Amino acid sequence: MNKTKEELLKKITDVLSQEQFDYFPKELYEPIKYTMSLGGKRIRPLMTLLSCDMFGGQIEDAVYPAVGLEIFHNFTLIHDDILDNASLRRGVATVFKKWDINRAILSGDTMFALSYDYFFKTKESFILPVLQIFNKTAIEVCQGQQYDMNFETQKEVSIDDYLEMIRLKTAVLLGACVKIGAVIGKASDEEATLIYNFAENLGIAFQLKDDILDVYSDQDVFGKKTGGDIVTNKKTYLYLKALELSDNKQKEALEYWFGLTDTDADVKINSVKGIYNGLSIKQVTESEINKYYQKALNNIDYIKVDNVKKDIFLEFAHNLMNREK
Amino acid sequence: MNKTKEELLKKITDVLSQEQFDYFPKELYEPIKYTMSLGGKRIRPLMTLLSCDMFGGQIEDAVYPAVGLEIFHNFTLIHDDILDNASLRRGVATVFKKWDINRAILSGDTMFALSYDYFFKTKESFILPVLQIFNKTAIEVCQGQQYDMNFETQKEVSIDDYLEMIRLKTAVLLGACVKIGAVIGKASDEEATLIYNFAENLGIAFQLKDDILDVYSDQDVFGKKTGGDIVTNKKTYLYLKALELSDNKQKEALEYWFGLTDTDADVKINSVKGIYNGLSIKQVTESEINKYYQKALNNIDYIKVDNVKKDIFLEFAHNLMNREK
Repeated sequence: MNKTKEELLKKITDVLSQEQFDYFPKELYEPIKYTMSLGGKRIRPLMTLLSCDMFGGQIEDAVYPAVGLEIFHNFTLIHDDILDNASLRRGVATVFKKWDINRAILSGDTMFALSYDYFFKTKESFILPVLQIFNKTAIEVCQGQQYDMNFETQKEVSIDDYLEMIRLKTAVLLGACVKIGAVIGKASDEEATLIYNFAENLGIAFQLKDDILDVYSDQDVFGKKTGGDIVTNKKTYLYLKALELSDNKQKEALEYWFGLTDTDADVKINSVKGIYNGLSIKQVTESEINKYYQKALNNIDYIKVDNVKKDIFLEFAHNLMNREK
Repeated sequence: MNKTKEELLKKITDVLSQEQFDYFPKELYEPIKYTMSLGGKRIRPLMTLLSCDMFGGQIEDAVYPAVGLEIFHNFTLIHDDILDNASLRRGVATVFKKWDINRAILSGDTMFALSYDYFFKTKESFILPVLQIFNKTAIEVCQGQQYDMNFETQKEVSIDDYLEMIRLKTAVLLGACVKIGAVIGKASDEEATLIYNFAENLGIAFQLKDDILDVYSDQDVFGKKTGGDIVTNKKTYLYLKALELSDNKQKEALEYWFGLTDTDADVKINSVKGIYNGLSIKQVTESEINKYYQKALNNIDYIKVDNVKKDIFLEFAHNLMNREK
């Protein structure tokens, strides 16, 4: 009998609630406690447990690595917010804004190390294979973040460059989460690769969906102002695809707007959206999302476990794809 | 037959020279390559190999963890230089000055992850025990760095606070280096603890020696301007001990000088040095150094290996204690 998403989420929050990060010096652990208490959807540890459960593994063996992955993810948010000069995260001040850059750097480093501690808590035979997946992924996430930074000033960014960047920055960690769950569920190498590919493809679809939501979501549902990516001249899939599909005049207009830094936000958003709409960018991107989503579904299709065991996973993927925020 | 320090150093540089850090994106790896190519004394990996060799272990099993420890140490330097706003390191621009804070944060994070990779390269049976020592230490080093930052603005810092800070920031990593060498040399738990304590005590002595050198070394030999700690109002052992031993008038003078930020450096250095000299602070600190050095020698004395095997280690410790830069 498979566990429900809610049951698995409770396993995660139980472990997290045992960890209060009340260590010394408090200046180091306050930002960690703050970040971890903001919640978030806990998508990554949930994917680890879903995968472990699907392959018939013991949730007790997977829950600590799952929490390690969540701590790692939150570490990357703290450092990324410095890199992106982001003021808000989950509706509240980012760590480096609430405290300062030094505290954010050092508490982030500490979280990175703490995440390894959680891998040591699983059954000994799992630790090494799982750590190796994690460590490889941690390096890839840094690579993805560097590509993202490069793109800010890089003149020519191809669609392939962009897809590779979001694969590294976002998708490989989801891949690692489910692969780690698979290893603990004693899946075969082939199955572990299939579930990794599933999550990687889902991750790319997820990030492309993010690009759409930033422009096209219902602001009340989305919870923050839409159009942020346009205002900050972010080279998203929508922008790069629009450049590719535009005629000379549209291209010139796009590059004009994305060359401005200090201009009326609403005028800029509406103008760019106008170009996007003229090129049906939303539909083109949705079709690309669907391509990755279908790839993901194909990957999971090849895994030889009862269909009923896949259902919770498929529902989870479906919800991720159909979210409005 | 024990290996000489030079032979062991060559093992380290051989592995380091195989690792050119020529990966992508180059913006991420350039600062890593730069930092690792600056050299330094390679004290930490050398201590790992010395310890392994003393306990009769295979150097081939220890050299990769040793290099991992060196990469970790260099990562901490990159982030610490941001935290300390330091412009120069080993005579050249620090990473965040040469590039920018973002590159320094992210390349540092990557080095931290890369250091774990090197632990995976040793014999499988050693990986886990060695990784656990390393990870615990990595967290302690962050704690030490946070205490160091706290002390900048903290009004009252006791001598004990200071010693605990340098223990965490500097000494525990030396302890971890030799303990990891001991584990790979199949030392008993008791011996691994003794060599850890040896290096920890040596590390505290080493750091106190640093405090003296900053004020009292021959500038030509030291290679940089002396008195930097006084100019930047750093609460070193010398300063804290001087506060403790001073009469009201001296205390007032010390606090006056350490309250100034923009003043003639030479006048300030000479005035503070005058107070230090009046209180024989150099001698008092040397006596404290000797206390820790003797503790360290006592620790190694209890280790049951042939004295001849300890000699290279003891010579190494002696040289660290008698260095002039």
